[in-house]
Amino acid sequence: MMKFEIIYRDRDSKARVGRMTMPHGIVETPAFLPVATQGTIKSLTSEELCGIGVQIICCNTYHLFLRPGHRTIEKLGGLHRFMHWERPILTDSGGFQVYSLSDLREVTDKGVRFKSHLDGRELFLGPEEAMEIQEALGSDIALVLDECPPYPTTWEYAQNSMRLSTNWAKRCKEIKKDKKQALFAIVQGGMYPDLREESAKSLVGIGFAGYAIGGLSLGEEKKVTQRILEHTLSFLPEEAPRYLMGVGTPEDILEAVKLGVDLFDCVLPTRNGRNGTLFTSSGKIAIKNSKFREDDSPIDSECRCSTCGHYSRAYLRHLFLAKEILACRLATLHNLYFYTHLMEKIRSAIIEEGRPREGLTD
Amino acid sequence: MMKFEIIYRDRDSKARVGRMTMPHGIVETPAFLPVATQGTIKSLTSEELCGIGVQIICCNTYHLFLRPGHRTIEKLGGLHRFMHWERPILTDSGGFQVYSLSDLREVTDKGVRFKSHLDGRELFLGPEEAMEIQEALGSDIALVLDECPPYPTTWEYAQNSMRLSTNWAKRCKEIKKDKKQALFAIVQGGMYPDLREESAKSLVGIGFAGYAIGGLSLGEEKKVTQRILEHTLSFLPEEAPRYLMGVGTPEDILEAVKLGVDLFDCVLPTRNGRNGTLFTSSGKIAIKNSKFREDDSPIDSECRCSTCGHYSRAYLRHLFLAKEILACRLATLHNLYFYTHLMEKIRSAIIEEGRPREGLTD
Repeated sequence: MMKFEIIYRDRDSKARVGRMTMPHGIVETPAFLPVATQGTIKSLTSEELCGIGVQIICCNTYHLFLRPGHRTIEKLGGLHRFMHWERPILTDSGGFQVYSLSDLREVTDKGVRFKSHLDGRELFLGPEEAMEIQEALGSDIALVLDECPPYPTTWEYAQNSMRLSTNWAKRCKEIKKDKKQALFAIVQGGMYPDLREESAKSLVGIGFAGYAIGGLSLGEEKKVTQRILEHTLSFLPEEAPRYLMGVGTPEDILEAVKLGVDLFDCVLPTRNGRNGTLFTSSGKIAIKNSKFREDDSPIDSECRCSTCGHYSRAYLRHLFLAKEILACRLATLHNLYFYTHLMEKIRSAIIEEGRPREGLTD
Repeated sequence: MMKFEIIYRDRDSKARVGRMTMPHGIVETPAFLPVATQGTIKSLTSEELCGIGVQIICCNTYHLFLRPGHRTIEKLGGLHRFMHWERPILTDSGGFQVYSLSDLREVTDKGVRFKSHLDGRELFLGPEEAMEIQEALGSDIALVLDECPPYPTTWEYAQNSMRLSTNWAKRCKEIKKDKKQALFAIVQGGMYPDLREESAKSLVGIGFAGYAIGGLSLGEEKKVTQRILEHTLSFLPEEAPRYLMGVGTPEDILEAVKLGVDLFDCVLPTRNGRNGTLFTSSGKIAIKNSKFREDDSPIDSECRCSTCGHYSRAYLRHLFLAKEILACRLATLHNLYFYTHLMEKIRSAIIEEGRPREGLTD
């Protein structure tokens, strides 16, 4: 089972510092989860992730279900052992990738029929399967199966979709066997405040260990997204962790933390790294730019990651232009260090400028 | 300047253990040089190479000349600083790649005119350029420019080519400015014993810090190669290091060590690693094979590399099938550890079963 404690609250916003205790360890929140789509944070080892302070990662159930298969991973001792990652893991339900990657065949009350994007095999994912797969993987946090409506979508479509997701969430909770694994619900409802309210209230009524907020990373206008996020959060219990799925940029994360979000996952730092876009304390840089040709300085002179400790911008640029694997690796490590360090700074700022939770010393 | 001492000689063969002292450190021989073609051992950091005991690496002058350019590397403090590699580096002359990769235009007494395989730029590489580029890179060991005849080739072609290479070697020695950088000659002469003898004797007459043997990794029959190698070595001075270029398999290395070879370079462990062929104490394995699907054991249970310490064959296989970058990385690290450890075992065996060089304690 998961335990979530709020340790500090910010004085000027709804930001809070929390502590999640799970079978594979403790996660201090607000936290960022790098995405290990196929059971690996692309180009990095688990040892390196530990070294830069990553507390928890997110793995994609859809990909691992297709390859190597959850039963294979289960036989090999579970996902933690398979990946040599001893800290907590969150798995998504697979729903998002079924909608975005596979050849979708049919959605019914029972679940989703689809064809694998790898080999065209016809497969089925319903609430039972989503729970079974994630229990076989052995993650610390599992997510309910949801339908991810496209954006933009009509109110009617969003309502039907949200109600279907709510039913699936209810079934996920009912059939869940592994009680050590925490189950998070996913609030949907598109850009419609009334549907978000209904979704949140229904899910809270069923009761989950935590609440994810889906469908807010699809490229909507920032102000709209923020308003919907704030509105949605107002219906979620203070004492449960809130997880904003697929977000985002450092700026987006900071804004959401202020509204009371505890967890984030996004491919941005890893994908940007592989493309040569690097985060620094003075903004992003495109390392392939010719101005870095003879630049002997590190990516960010304030950064303490091993890439910045050992390698110059000029060398990184050379590796990218020469299409060398090491380029992806050094850049990914730097970007994830940047994100991990950003979350540390956010937690420190809340603690230093905030106040302990009332009753903490009781 | 380079200093080479022979420390131990094998009792039953011509194998010897030596010690090369260079500006960037000491190399114990027999040694294997991993190939950092474009200024990186594909997928690995310099720190990792140090960690597994790599003593010296080989970089390709042709590739670095084309990109990022030797003057750029010189401005950035030389190749060691550029790569964050503080141990010795050997650079080849660029000749081999000019013949194998570029669009060759014209070979004259002065050098080779060719078009870059990257952008079609017409470029020229003669003995002067080969020395100038390698001095700008700042390697510990430079190689003379040679012509690499195709295989098979006629006696007449091989003779002309060998004599051209000898003239270029002489000019390289004459024009060399940087005396800290050791210069190695390259014995050529194809599969013709008389030409190998003439090449070796001429080069020894000019006098070099070490002698490379070229043109013996082109796929000839093993017995022919070995006979030519043994014959060639008989004309080289005992007191200089001998470097067999482009070799090879563990078996080939062991045979050549017995004939008195001190240095080897080859892309085999790194390229094989990226293709999923892994060296183990009981032979090579193809990790993508379905029999490893649920194999929880390490690549080689006798291996102490970090890949074998942390990851299973099943996980490696999954990474390869999923085309994950980490697959190349974990496999390359393992294979290079295997080679580095193989050379350590060879040196230990010579020392334990051999005898110290006469006069060592004088």
